Amino acid sequence: MNKITILIHCKDLPGIIASVTNFITEKQGNVIYLDQHVDREQNIFFMRLESEFQDPNFSTETFKDCFKSNIADEFNMKWRIYSSEKKPKMALFVSKYDHCLYDLLGRYNSGELNLEIPFIISNHNDLKPIADSFKIPFYHIPVTKDTKAQAEAKQLELLEAHNIDFIVLARYMQIVSGTLINKYPNKIINIHHSFLPAFVGAKPYHSAYKRGVKIIGATSHYVTEELDAGPIIEQDVAHVSHTYTIDALIAKGRDLEKIVLANAIKSHSNRKVMVYNNKTVIFS
Amino acid sequence: MNKITILIHCKDLPGIIASVTNFITEKQGNVIYLDQHVDREQNIFFMRLESEFQDPNFSTETFKDCFKSNIADEFNMKWRIYSSEKKPKMALFVSKYDHCLYDLLGRYNSGELNLEIPFIISNHNDLKPIADSFKIPFYHIPVTKDTKAQAEAKQLELLEAHNIDFIVLARYMQIVSGTLINKYPNKIINIHHSFLPAFVGAKPYHSAYKRGVKIIGATSHYVTEELDAGPIIEQDVAHVSHTYTIDALIAKGRDLEKIVLANAIKSHSNRKVMVYNNKTVIFS
Amino acid sequence: MNKITILIHCKDLPGIIASVTNFITEKQGNVIYLDQHVDREQNIFFMRLESEFQDPNFSTETFKDCFKSNIADEFNMKWRIYSSEKKPKMALFVSKYDHCLYDLLGRYNSGELNLEIPFIISNHNDLKPIADSFKIPFYHIPVTKDTKAQAEAKQLELLEAHNIDFIVLARYMQIVSGTLINKYPNKIINIHHSFLPAFVGAKPYHSAYKRGVKIIGATSHYVTEELDAGPIIEQDVAHVSHTYTIDALIAKGRDLEKIVLANAIKSHSNRKVMVYNNKTVIFS
Amino acid sequence: MNKITILIHCKDLPGIIASVTNFITEKQGNVIYLDQHVDREQNIFFMRLESEFQDPNFSTETFKDCFKSNIADEFNMKWRIYSSEKKPKMALFVSKYDHCLYDLLGRYNSGELNLEIPFIISNHNDLKPIADSFKIPFYHIPVTKDTKAQAEAKQLELLEAHNIDFIVLARYMQIVSGTLINKYPNKIINIHHSFLPAFVGAKPYHSAYKRGVKIIGATSHYVTEELDAGPIIEQDVAHVSHTYTIDALIAKGRDLEKIVLANAIKSHSNRKVMVYNNKTVIFS
Repeated sequence: MNKITILIHCKDLPGIIASVTNFITEKQGNVIYLDQHVDREQNIFFMRLESEFQDPNFSTETFKDCFKSNIADEFNMKWRIYSSEKKPKMALFVSKYDHCLYDLLGRYNSGELNLEIPFIISNHNDLKPIADSFKIPFYHIPVTKDTKAQAEAKQLELLEAHNIDFIVLARYMQIVSGTLINKYPNKIINIHHSFLPAFVGAKPYHSAYKRGVKIIGATSHYVTEELDAGPIIEQDVAHVSHTYTIDALIAKGRDLEKIVLANAIKSHSNRKVMVYNNKTVIFS
Repeated sequence: MNKITILIHCKDLPGIIASVTNFITEKQGNVIYLDQHVDREQNIFFMRLESEFQDPNFSTETFKDCFKSNIADEFNMKWRIYSSEKKPKMALFVSKYDHCLYDLLGRYNSGELNLEIPFIISNHNDLKPIADSFKIPFYHIPVTKDTKAQAEAKQLELLEAHNIDFIVLARYMQIVSGTLINKYPNKIINIHHSFLPAFVGAKPYHSAYKRGVKIIGATSHYVTEELDAGPIIEQDVAHVSHTYTIDALIAKGRDLEKIVLANAIKSHSNRKVMVYNNKTVIFS
Repeated sequence: MNKITILIHCKDLPGIIASVTNFITEKQGNVIYLDQHVDREQNIFFMRLESEFQDPNFSTETFKDCFKSNIADEFNMKWRIYSSEKKPKMALFVSKYDHCLYDLLGRYNSGELNLEIPFIISNHNDLKPIADSFKIPFYHIPVTKDTKAQAEAKQLELLEAHNIDFIVLARYMQIVSGTLINKYPNKIINIHHSFLPAFVGAKPYHSAYKRGVKIIGATSHYVTEELDAGPIIEQDVAHVSHTYTIDALIAKGRDLEKIVLANAIKSHSNRKVMVYNNKTVIFS
Repeated sequence: MNKITILIHCKDLPGIIASVTNFITEKQGNVIYLDQHVDREQNIFFMRLESEFQDPNFSTETFKDCFKSNIADEFNMKWRIYSSEKKPKMALFVSKYDHCLYDLLGRYNSGELNLEIPFIISNHNDLKPIADSFKIPFYHIPVTKDTKAQAEAKQLELLEAHNIDFIVLARYMQIVSGTLINKYPNKIINIHHSFLPAFVGAKPYHSAYKRGVKIIGATSHYVTEELDAGPIIEQDVAHVSHTYTIDALIAKGRDLEKIVLANAIKSHSNRKVMVYNNKTVIFS
């Protein structure tokens, strides 16, 4: 059984859903999931659709060509079609914090994540033993002010050599350059340890402590050139009280960071995220 | 602008979405919302669709007839079509607890609820002043073991005289008979003050206290003949601790009950709920 | 039975708890609640204690004098002692939004709040019918740029005439002047419709929509001269998605605002809040 | 600096807090944490207290003796005193599910848990590679109906040889016998994958699916002879919808199980839990 996922956005016009679903029916497909969203203010239509094709000779590439000329061009759609056979390839960037790394590799080993992790990159060597114990290649690429450009060149080389689809900064602690961001637009996922837009920048738990908030949060977002201002994919929060020291906030926050990042990765790797106007549509 | 909401469920077959959306396009309608769900285990298809028609001569009744013969019969659908012009009529049954009543009438007066409340029925007179202050007719229908049948006859008379669409038991504290339930199947909404199926029956907060749970809940469900076992519409919970006395649990629970009941009523009155196999599909 | 609540904060020193609890034991009191907190960074000790005295001749005033000379002065404490017989008096300031008003008056009528509401002040007349239906005096004091000083003079007159203990701005929509704030330091409670410090200022739901957050919040805080920057008493949040329009965010937010404000009022009126360094200690 | 934790419960009487805090002050100790709770219904007093002693010759054993004769006996207290130097020893029992194991060992390696894990016991060999990669001894003790008694004898031997303080069943999937329970009363922590008391017994996610609940939960509790009925330590829940298959419920539930179990272990190992009447007092 062949299964594909279609993501579409375009100007909202009458008849789009009928046209797309007719087309799939004509191609002997069965729609097994359809969700759509209309931004009424901007008049933009979004749709995510999963379809199954029983024909053993079904070709995703042929379908794509046909979809483009018959449907997509007519409605001037931005569209993507994915075969569910192909798992996306994710590169993990880490630094010294290990909690997100343990969490993601545990999920990965359990088969919970629909993706491949060809390698881990870090600017420090501290987490190499963890990568080793999970038998995932680990590249230590130190970054200093002077070597930043070189380091990034090495990173890009690895990313391209492995046909990486998206990058996850699992508390990587380095600001990524515009070059990398432009090569992977809306494909670099960061976890920020605050409820954005509160407490952008460094040391958000210290700022949260100082402000005396009663709730802390974590935010996973796509990296854009403006720091901590990219499209938000997932957020979650936890209640805290005056009894929490900064260390206690950090400890409590780690559980948020793990789950928020894992959920953002699941949404992205299952092709449930669409980005527009620096915001996301996240289909269920 | 005419706007309708269509709810459909039937055996899952290829081409349903295409057929329905084509039909709407043919009738010059524009789909502004579509969500569907397939129960893969039971092979049942569910869909909720909102559509707008600019034709000033559009008639919901004509559309219904045409939909039945062209689409619904072909797929052997169970279906309902509502005009958004017609607000559902809700009867409120209360007893002595006032928190849900205050909450609902406050929302009603603010215009937050898409419905009409023709009257309130109670087996006690205690809450009459509240009904009066909101200028809603209040019928005091006492219920004793001996007068239960008579009381229900009076209730039915009022319900029918006002063309009531659905009934809300806002902490009504009386068990409703099978006669009423069968006249309003999946149209009587109750609020139970526990996280069902934990603590069915009377005094759930006392049971929760005794068991030492760390979370309490509230559940809104459709009333069926089996007590507290009907299809669940909405649930929510709150964390509690050993410091909570039974009275504190009850007080904390009131806020849950108010919000859970209000949300269930919103889902129902906005025609977002479908029931099957004693479960609900709640569209967003 | 006489019951008092003692709130203390001072430099952390050994023996404070022993001294205070000894003192109460000597006075034939029984401690029925004690919670303390030490800010280790600032070396400040906080304690809240409830005590019962069976002696029918017990006098809170005598106890206070004795506590001051025997305990408080020795440790250089800041302290307050309240008799539980005396309910605090709360003035409600409203404008045009009715949801918090309905919610608070519903709770008030149900006996859920340990306080008295001598009157409601508003800069508009819109909500007078609600005040009337709950039989609470309503003063319409319009505020314009030119009349602001006069209006505030009238407000102060009313507040003083009724011995008001604290003020609640239930979506009052006006910036309160420094004069009022200084007369009621940490005694004016505001509800802000965002998860502060995100989205300070006006129209936070519009800002939240624009930023594409996945969670909205509400914050209740004491009013200080810096806008939306006072000590936070209570916060809560709700998950939202791309399907929420600004109106839907506002509707969802109303439920948060109601509960967050009600909980902040309960903490304050039950003397569970202590303020220092622009932060709060909230005892359970 | 010596630091101890004292846990006390006894009949509620006047003067307990004063007596205990005086005693500590006399011994040159400084109280750095005190929380108490009174069950008013049962008239039982509970207290948790942390105290520091600067005297380099301070002996926890001497303090205990002195506390017993001077304080504990007078009030007929049940009490425990722990030196914070001594980390509790925890035995991990697992079966085939790996998510809780990965989570706990990740936390353990990060230094997040205040305990030692001398070994892991499993009735299957599947998770041995994980134990190996974290370098923790793994004992494979198969359990069949016929060998259950022998297997348990082996378990007990290991538990005693390593002076194990408490046992964690991290989805162990076997019913533990009364013998083991009686040797470790309120010292065997289980994670049940439902919101107890809903869905006791096997396959709770299947039951939750069938009942159509809108929230799933996980519960960590002490094991008693009655199945899934022991004192509850920690519970948490997550919202689900009609779109969740049983597999999706299971996947969502895994994150709950991990966090609920980890938090229960933290409360227990930090000596914050007291048990009475099949309920827990959990100090903050």
